[in-house]
Amino acid sequence: MTGRFLSLEGGEGTGKSTQAERLAAALKERGLEVLVTREPGGSDGAEAIRDLLMQGSVGRWSPHSEALLFAAARADHVEKRIRPALGIGTWVICDRYIDSTRAYQGAQGIDDASILALHGFGTKGLLPDRTFLLELPGETASARATGRDGPGADRFAARDSGFHRAVAARFEEIAAAEGDRVRRIDASGSPEQVTGRLVHALDDLLA
Amino acid sequence: MTGRFLSLEGGEGTGKSTQAERLAAALKERGLEVLVTREPGGSDGAEAIRDLLMQGSVGRWSPHSEALLFAAARADHVEKRIRPALGIGTWVICDRYIDSTRAYQGAQGIDDASILALHGFGTKGLLPDRTFLLELPGETASARATGRDGPGADRFAARDSGFHRAVAARFEEIAAAEGDRVRRIDASGSPEQVTGRLVHALDDLLA
Ligand SMILES: Nc1ncnc2c1ncn2[C@@H]1O[C@H](COP(=O)(O)OP(=O)(O)OP(=O)(O)O)[C@@H](O)[C@H]1O
Ligand SMILES: Nc1ncnc2c1ncn2[C@@H]1O[C@H](COP(=O)(O)OP(=O)(O)OP(=O)(O)O)[C@@H](O)[C@H]1O
Ligand SMILES: [Mg+2]
Ligand SMILES: [Mg+2]
Repeated sequence: MTGRFLSLEGGEGTGKSTQAERLAAALKERGLEVLVTREPGGSDGAEAIRDLLMQGSVGRWSPHSEALLFAAARADHVEKRIRPALGIGTWVICDRYIDSTRAYQGAQGIDDASILALHGFGTKGLLPDRTFLLELPGETASARATGRDGPGADRFAARDSGFHRAVAARFEEIAAAEGDRVRRIDASGSPEQVTGRLVHALDDLLA
Repeated sequence: MTGRFLSLEGGEGTGKSTQAERLAAALKERGLEVLVTREPGGSDGAEAIRDLLMQGSVGRWSPHSEALLFAAARADHVEKRIRPALGIGTWVICDRYIDSTRAYQGAQGIDDASILALHGFGTKGLLPDRTFLLELPGETASARATGRDGPGADRFAARDSGFHRAVAARFEEIAAAEGDRVRRIDASGSPEQVTGRLVHALDDLLA
């Protein structure tokens, strides 16, 4: 038996981390083994790379170096944690995965084919069985994130609103092109309501 | 006026770092501006990645993660240090560069086309104007390196002799395929003698 691989995607403050935990609880209630993990990071090596990526000023890394570092971190995470868990039947919920790299690095001008080629090299192209794109109006997401962290707490959060709109547009393009894997989820309303939408969008895989 | 880009390659203890400094001195005597740098590392970001690569046990990173990390470090190094120096007419001498990745990661089963594709992505494929492959019998190189460091001082030095023979074989294949760029240099004899061979093999670029 192989576990299912799920990812949560979307801009800052859309509720990915909140829903990763809530969805894990809902799956465990159904008797499944669940691993919640996150990117960048998720394994010892990948967390060390995450530290390099998150620290320093916005211009510390060129978009190309950044894309290579994300690919290296993801390769380690997949090899050391995700594939082993799936192999023993555990369901894996990953808080951000390849689509975040496609959206954020894509918004900085890196072409999608190159990002997917790096992903193919690092992980043999492992994609989730299902990806949830959490969608929220920009102001709501930004108010949620600022309420949690205070303003501009890390390199990514420090970008301007034009950048965040470009990221949201890239996420939408991915969802439009890969509708079987990627499901758009309305992330407004209470946490309970959002979790209900996620479980509903998993019906076929849970059957 | 654009500077020339030179790299020194070869196994551990073949005298790359010694010759990088000696060659720089010889070029400065001819009135040239010279930057000596090294890989992995050579820029702030790349040195931080170097620390990740050099620490920990031999199995810390998979060969694929390692290749991505080297590519990320090299992309940063080229962008922040090498291209700017070349652009103002400085000659750059780099102690290891892309051919080391091709030889070491190649010896671990990563195919050459993939390594060159990562290099193309990270640096737009910047290659040296000339590469010197320093060659020495395995025992001599190993005795020199052990004399300097003591036995097994880092993750790379800790590999066995079969691995080092595979690396040497990959270096030879690269030199055979790209003879115009890559020159094989006898690294035996005194440091003065080796420097003389290097300068001789630069005659055309110095003219
Ligand atoms: N449905 C919700 N309604 C109101 N607040 C919420 C809801 N879901 C999450 N929050 C709150 O909004 C903030 C952001 O949520 P969360 O950290 O889960 O978002 P995220 O998508 O993981 O953000 P980031 O991308 O920055 O990691 C948190 O303070 C969280 O408690
Ligand atoms: N021509 C030479 N004859 C004798 N000893 C030498 C010669 N060249 C260098 N050495 C000594 O051999 C040792 C290894 O040289 P060096 O550090 O330059 O090699 P390297 O190729 O940079 O090695 P590494 O790949 O480990 O960095 C040093 O102690 C150096 O002083
Ligand atoms: Mg989060
Ligand atoms: Mg050296």
